[in-house]
Amino acid sequence: METKNTLVMDAQILDAHGLRKGSLLIENDKIIEVSSSISPAGVDKVINAQGKLLIPGLVNTHTHLSMTLFRGVADDLKLEKWLNDYIWPLEAHLNGEYCYAGALLGCVEMIKSGTTTFNDMYFYMDHVAEAVKEAGLRAVISHGMIDFDDEEKRKAEIKESKRIIKKCHGGADGRIRVALGPHSPYTCSRELLEEVRGLADEHGLLIHIHVAETEDEVRQVKEKYGLGPFAYLDDIGFLGEDVIAAHAVWLSSSEIHILRSRGVKLSHNPTSNMKLASGVSPVEELLECGVCVSLGTDGPASNNNLDMIEEMKIAALLQKIKSMDPTSLGAEKVFEMATINGAAALGMVDEIGTIEVGKKADLALINTRKCNLAPWRHPVSHLVYAASGCDVETVLCDGEILMENGKLKSLDEKYVIELAESAAEELTSKA
Amino acid sequence: METKNTLVMDAQILDAHGLRKGSLLIENDKIIEVSSSISPAGVDKVINAQGKLLIPGLVNTHTHLSMTLFRGVADDLKLEKWLNDYIWPLEAHLNGEYCYAGALLGCVEMIKSGTTTFNDMYFYMDHVAEAVKEAGLRAVISHGMIDFDDEEKRKAEIKESKRIIKKCHGGADGRIRVALGPHSPYTCSRELLEEVRGLADEHGLLIHIHVAETEDEVRQVKEKYGLGPFAYLDDIGFLGEDVIAAHAVWLSSSEIHILRSRGVKLSHNPTSNMKLASGVSPVEELLECGVCVSLGTDGPASNNNLDMIEEMKIAALLQKIKSMDPTSLGAEKVFEMATINGAAALGMVDEIGTIEVGKKADLALINTRKCNLAPWRHPVSHLVYAASGCDVETVLCDGEILMENGKLKSLDEKYVIELAESAAEELTSKA
Ligand SMILES: [Zn+2]
Ligand SMILES: [Zn+2]
Repeated sequence: METKNTLVMDAQILDAHGLRKGSLLIENDKIIEVSSSISPAGVDKVINAQGKLLIPGLVNTHTHLSMTLFRGVADDLKLEKWLNDYIWPLEAHLNGEYCYAGALLGCVEMIKSGTTTFNDMYFYMDHVAEAVKEAGLRAVISHGMIDFDDEEKRKAEIKESKRIIKKCHGGADGRIRVALGPHSPYTCSRELLEEVRGLADEHGLLIHIHVAETEDEVRQVKEKYGLGPFAYLDDIGFLGEDVIAAHAVWLSSSEIHILRSRGVKLSHNPTSNMKLASGVSPVEELLECGVCVSLGTDGPASNNNLDMIEEMKIAALLQKIKSMDPTSLGAEKVFEMATINGAAALGMVDEIGTIEVGKKADLALINTRKCNLAPWRHPVSHLVYAASGCDVETVLCDGEILMENGKLKSLDEKYVIELAESAAEELTSKA
Repeated sequence: METKNTLVMDAQILDAHGLRKGSLLIENDKIIEVSSSISPAGVDKVINAQGKLLIPGLVNTHTHLSMTLFRGVADDLKLEKWLNDYIWPLEAHLNGEYCYAGALLGCVEMIKSGTTTFNDMYFYMDHVAEAVKEAGLRAVISHGMIDFDDEEKRKAEIKESKRIIKKCHGGADGRIRVALGPHSPYTCSRELLEEVRGLADEHGLLIHIHVAETEDEVRQVKEKYGLGPFAYLDDIGFLGEDVIAAHAVWLSSSEIHILRSRGVKLSHNPTSNMKLASGVSPVEELLECGVCVSLGTDGPASNNNLDMIEEMKIAALLQKIKSMDPTSLGAEKVFEMATINGAAALGMVDEIGTIEVGKKADLALINTRKCNLAPWRHPVSHLVYAASGCDVETVLCDGEILMENGKLKSLDEKYVIELAESAAEELTSKA
């Protein structure tokens, strides 16, 4: 393969290590030099980043991307009604084509708002993988498994998971990894969870699961197993460093201890937790205990967008009001959650999440000359509290430019929107 | 004056009355026709709104616009430290020139995110008025008065208020109105508040005040006067239909009753209340009791932007998590807060806040063909939960086009950003 060099010149570089000025030389998919000045001579492509803020591509650690098709179909409803009357009837009519269209739309939205890696659990994941491949993004994908103690269902779910692993793991030049996706401890049998643990060990795969999202779930799990969700999962030997659990709202202090000692990773989803009135995760306490907490938007039916910059703001605001302490979860910490903690949560800490030599060139450039970011003084603060996804101008993933000056390179935005409109139209008419 | 006609053609019109399709004919500053089809013949300017959502210009009922200059200077801090160590030292060096620059920047930000009317309290308000005039926006402005029981200060504050009334009230073709701005019941003496009440009655002016923002304030007022802040204000005959109180976080149920019976208007500021960990206003309860609750961003030093679309989302999310009920403060209600309730709060219910014949042409057009708004199905939901200020494309105020297809018409955005940068630079070097 020929080498291709890209130079990002004269940026304000911001990551978990802080702020500095500099240029970045990229060779193929990797950052090979970061220094105060790099000559553009002989470089294939130069991106002028003067007056721009360069951050690591954001990492969204909990999504159901194809649910973009359900954006806004059901708001301001109780979870049960939301699921029974709206989401499940629609999901019954999903197919690979629709999931591809929804995922592609989600990819466009993520690129436009600076996200380069995401952790997705849903259905027809080989079609989602196809969208990820075309979009040029990096993703961990998992088939969402639910068996409700039914052995037939369990077998079918495991079979589908294995099919996806075989077909997609390591795909798109290594940008796609497959994880195992048991939906949650209250929708999956103990047998399914144990089988998942075995497969994860056997294949070296991550496990992506929802845990302790609502108080009702905790009650159900306690009634059935006599333990809180995380305590129960620990009891059956399910937990480990390869587990990323979404939500983690309702936790006992002994469960927080379990999370730390087992090295479980969390995905905090503040907007979804507020919108569905699930509760407030004790993020500040978890971080203080040394638990890795990353950030996710959850699906677009419970958010209703995929803007990780907005999610950072809402995460910070929610912790402050929870603790009634404005010093809770400051801008720097929440920025870490959306970058390096996300990388760590997905087992990619050596590959993404900061801007360093040897890491993948997954990057987002933010326009600092915008009215909502003036005066330009306090980059982390402005990014978290004043910016939104639309301030992102240029995005690279795996060294490829996916958006330049607001224009998508890998996908045709108009076409993708129309494809999603038709898919949603058809789907709604069936349900 | 010659008449000028503008036609907004084939829009999806959304206001507190619901959604319908139609065109809008504007003559000078007013809407003179709303119907399913209007001929463009002989019209001076046609705006093609096909595939666009037309909403009333948003009404931001609590701002300190010139504080854009302090954006991000102090985050994640306790209120006392925030004020004593950062905000007050900077404010000591303010002057008219700086306040003008900051206000102009705020005006740009508001136009770009669809706000056409705001209620501002700060200093050097004649300079703020100049910015409002140039920007083409509509505003209620008040000189913020603090006397801390000092008679000298009180006289000076009243004098400055009278100067601003005389100089600015009814200015900019009637787009500017002056209100009285006693800062709060804990920073203003009883004498000052009584004098304000008298002036409001005499001149028919609104009163803009902060009340019951923090628990500490309630404690202070109770210690001094033996009553909660609103009960105290009622006791001295201060409250009335012409009072708009910002925050209103800490309320007893008898105070809620007082608010309703006196017809006091409120400005809810959810982002500021979360960021400073002030508390959560019982908005849902207030609305149910028939109190007029509108929406505001507060100053950019405690938010840190002026995006009313983001504010709507955060307002809805905050009520849901406060009540642990996802049906709390649905999208329709929060949209009313940001439009018609804002109009009512500012005594402009006959002029702005909905799209109707006879009202001012204060309008915002939103691009519906954006990835974060696809599939385009549920306009109110998408506006509140999926959109952000940058989805606004075209804005009219008082019949004038202030922004068209993302391009500012009344101001030079680049120049305004540079002006604010220099002002902030100078100001910071002095403090
Ligand atoms: Zn989820
Ligand atoms: Zn205020």
